[in-house]
Amino acid sequence: MSENKIPYKVYLAENEMPTAWYNLRADMKNKPAPLLNPGTGLPLKAEELTPIFCEELVQQELDEDTKFYPIPQEIQDFYKMYRPSPLVRAYCLEKALDTPAKIYYKFEGNNTSGSHKLNSAIAQAYYAKNQGLKGVTTETGAGQWGTALSMACAYLGLDCKVFMVKVSYEQKPFRREVMRTYGASVTPSPSTETEVGRRILEAHPGTTGSLGCAISEAVEVAVKNPGYRYVLGSVLNQVLLHQSIIGLEARTAFDKIGVKPDVIIGCAGGGSNLGGLIAPFMGEKLRGEADYQIIAVEPASCPSFTRGKYAYDFCDTGMICPLAKMYTLGSSFIPSPNHAGGLRFHGMSPVLSQLYHDGLMEARAVEQTSVFEAAERFARTEGILPAPESSHAIKVAIDEALKCKETGEEKTILFGLTGTGYFDLVAYQKFNDGEMSDYIPTDEDLARGFAGLPKVPGME
Amino acid sequence: MSENKIPYKVYLAENEMPTAWYNLRADMKNKPAPLLNPGTGLPLKAEELTPIFCEELVQQELDEDTKFYPIPQEIQDFYKMYRPSPLVRAYCLEKALDTPAKIYYKFEGNNTSGSHKLNSAIAQAYYAKNQGLKGVTTETGAGQWGTALSMACAYLGLDCKVFMVKVSYEQKPFRREVMRTYGASVTPSPSTETEVGRRILEAHPGTTGSLGCAISEAVEVAVKNPGYRYVLGSVLNQVLLHQSIIGLEARTAFDKIGVKPDVIIGCAGGGSNLGGLIAPFMGEKLRGEADYQIIAVEPASCPSFTRGKYAYDFCDTGMICPLAKMYTLGSSFIPSPNHAGGLRFHGMSPVLSQLYHDGLMEARAVEQTSVFEAAERFARTEGILPAPESSHAIKVAIDEALKCKETGEEKTILFGLTGTGYFDLVAYQKFNDGEMSDYIPTDEDLARGFAGLPKVPGME
Repeated sequence: MSENKIPYKVYLAENEMPTAWYNLRADMKNKPAPLLNPGTGLPLKAEELTPIFCEELVQQELDEDTKFYPIPQEIQDFYKMYRPSPLVRAYCLEKALDTPAKIYYKFEGNNTSGSHKLNSAIAQAYYAKNQGLKGVTTETGAGQWGTALSMACAYLGLDCKVFMVKVSYEQKPFRREVMRTYGASVTPSPSTETEVGRRILEAHPGTTGSLGCAISEAVEVAVKNPGYRYVLGSVLNQVLLHQSIIGLEARTAFDKIGVKPDVIIGCAGGGSNLGGLIAPFMGEKLRGEADYQIIAVEPASCPSFTRGKYAYDFCDTGMICPLAKMYTLGSSFIPSPNHAGGLRFHGMSPVLSQLYHDGLMEARAVEQTSVFEAAERFARTEGILPAPESSHAIKVAIDEALKCKETGEEKTILFGLTGTGYFDLVAYQKFNDGEMSDYIPTDEDLARGFAGLPKVPGME
Repeated sequence: MSENKIPYKVYLAENEMPTAWYNLRADMKNKPAPLLNPGTGLPLKAEELTPIFCEELVQQELDEDTKFYPIPQEIQDFYKMYRPSPLVRAYCLEKALDTPAKIYYKFEGNNTSGSHKLNSAIAQAYYAKNQGLKGVTTETGAGQWGTALSMACAYLGLDCKVFMVKVSYEQKPFRREVMRTYGASVTPSPSTETEVGRRILEAHPGTTGSLGCAISEAVEVAVKNPGYRYVLGSVLNQVLLHQSIIGLEARTAFDKIGVKPDVIIGCAGGGSNLGGLIAPFMGEKLRGEADYQIIAVEPASCPSFTRGKYAYDFCDTGMICPLAKMYTLGSSFIPSPNHAGGLRFHGMSPVLSQLYHDGLMEARAVEQTSVFEAAERFARTEGILPAPESSHAIKVAIDEALKCKETGEEKTILFGLTGTGYFDLVAYQKFNDGEMSDYIPTDEDLARGFAGLPKVPGME
């Protein structure tokens, strides 16, 4: 193993790191459908979005033409604190699988937020500060995004208000404490601090909260407090733009060692990691310069790509956000309570949805027991305890590598290892105790979600 | 900041990684005192140790002469999974402190065990496997060492039995689950699986356990089961030998950028990190080739260097281990229950004790509230949430950098960032809630510990 010329880990030098984000939309012939105003059914204009979002981010959100956005120097400096992330050759996993496939992963977990979320958090916090704002608000479920945003805000001296789904606030006290250590205020949602929170508490006194409710509270606080805006960690076009750093670094690292991947695999919840990982490779594919097999992996219990509808829907269960055209299970769809693997968003990034619709990528749904089996195998051979989300990609990477073992093909596989599982040990415990089960929604379950899809004025 | 020539992080290439460990004892004029048999008071011979420890490790333990030990290829390959660890220039911290000092840290936390412990765990597991053993036993308190050993054993296909102090087993279920995910069996101690455990449970039915008791159980299982040996994560000479990888990498990285540190700072519990970090630098100092200011940092609540006695003592509270000559507070000394910062071992590595006794390094004791203040400051500027242990070194590094601000000196400071604090959030929560307090043992507290120092046959 030690004789190999390609090292276990490829790190870019700092002067090789990307200095611009890549806007994949600029290379798409079929652009993603525009966000709509749910009241009028008309495409949203910048001025409708700026009371909620930072100006520069609204501009990035709506911009389908600019191919490269220079990364501001302060963000580049912050990136250097935890990037470049390594492109790892999984020699030990290859050996354990006895496969002729070459497996690589881009590991985004080597930072305290534990995931790739920090790539966009620092960008969004930077533009908020640049606009002269005092702070930002957001929601968080498990806490990965909230942690990333807290870190970015601490670095820039920006106030950070996080509404954390109450059940997570109580059951995941460690994530909460990380955010507090970074100076964020963390409020269990629903709270008495907002009108919408008070209304929900009155109607459902014992509720443990939901992401939709936390979004509504965060948006209300942002809109009502001068100097505050709301930020979001996935789904949006701007987030995919910032996350392109993952793919850009990966491609440069491959160029350094003279390798080209054949298959690119990423887990997909809202799409922030997958969209970032594949961006430059998909760009080459769109421009006809190269071909790659690109596979999105989602939980069988929340199968937006594989069983969802391509339709306009709300991004939030509270139905206060703009309408986005995407693969969706309906904003009222909630995965079975036994689901422990993350990626529980009902919809999917509009950019990725369009690409999938156009046949430029595939999707696979996998069951969580098989995901945790893959996670355990990976941990024991490659050392890193992976996040359950990331383990969806591991599962399919292992499947593909084992196919190569059968066919003898020496494919080069790249997958995104989005983060670590250090705060997901309740799920691992369930798996270790043999108490994890699978649930695949029935057609009736899905029909109930689809029934809630909004009617868009002027469309039928 | 971006104009600096020295990058934020210096990574060695894989072919620049050390291929041999450095045995500091070979360069010491005053060798550390030998381990004694507590019954006879005579230096222990290899054959007295091999029923408990692996043969090759006993040989390393007793060897004062061999300067370099080639690192077996399989261990080198494992190291490449998570090493080289970066030598980080703390530009952001320097800026926040507005200091002319140049601050560097060697970051050992980028692996799932979360600390440097893995460097010795893989070595000890390797030699156990090489000897044809079936497995190893050990004890763990907070779980860092147990996790590291589980990872190493999973990689090598070795059985791993961990006795975890019962109170930690119950209060730190996440560490326990990481170990289980890596296939280790984790038993709360005291248990009914051993004679000593049953005896203790009978005498103290409600006991929550202690490290001393867990050691006794682990040793009993190792001795009674053919094909098993006991392994330990700190204090021992062999551990410092393996941990020299930290200092060797750091020195090579400094050579690459043409920098020499003036001050080297490390936290010290049993001494595994500090001994490894300083090894090659102390070697230069011993050989008269260079001079460095070397500072060991310990908790004021467990001050073995600064207030302990240099005497023969048991390494364990159960008094079943050999006697080691070291700075010690007495094997019955237990830090105040309000102590949350780790580094709670009553003694100190015999190698470091001898060096300290000979005036080759200094020691400072710091109070935990100031340690967590330093941890928070570091987290907010450098991004990484540090382990409480590591934060002792951060505290003194910041102190030294602020002194430079006063004097205008441009000193180069290196400190060891041994690990991350992701499993220490109960302590952080206490700090965030303003409920952390300090306690410095009184002279009477210390006198009680010293009273328990053993009488060594033939010495007075």
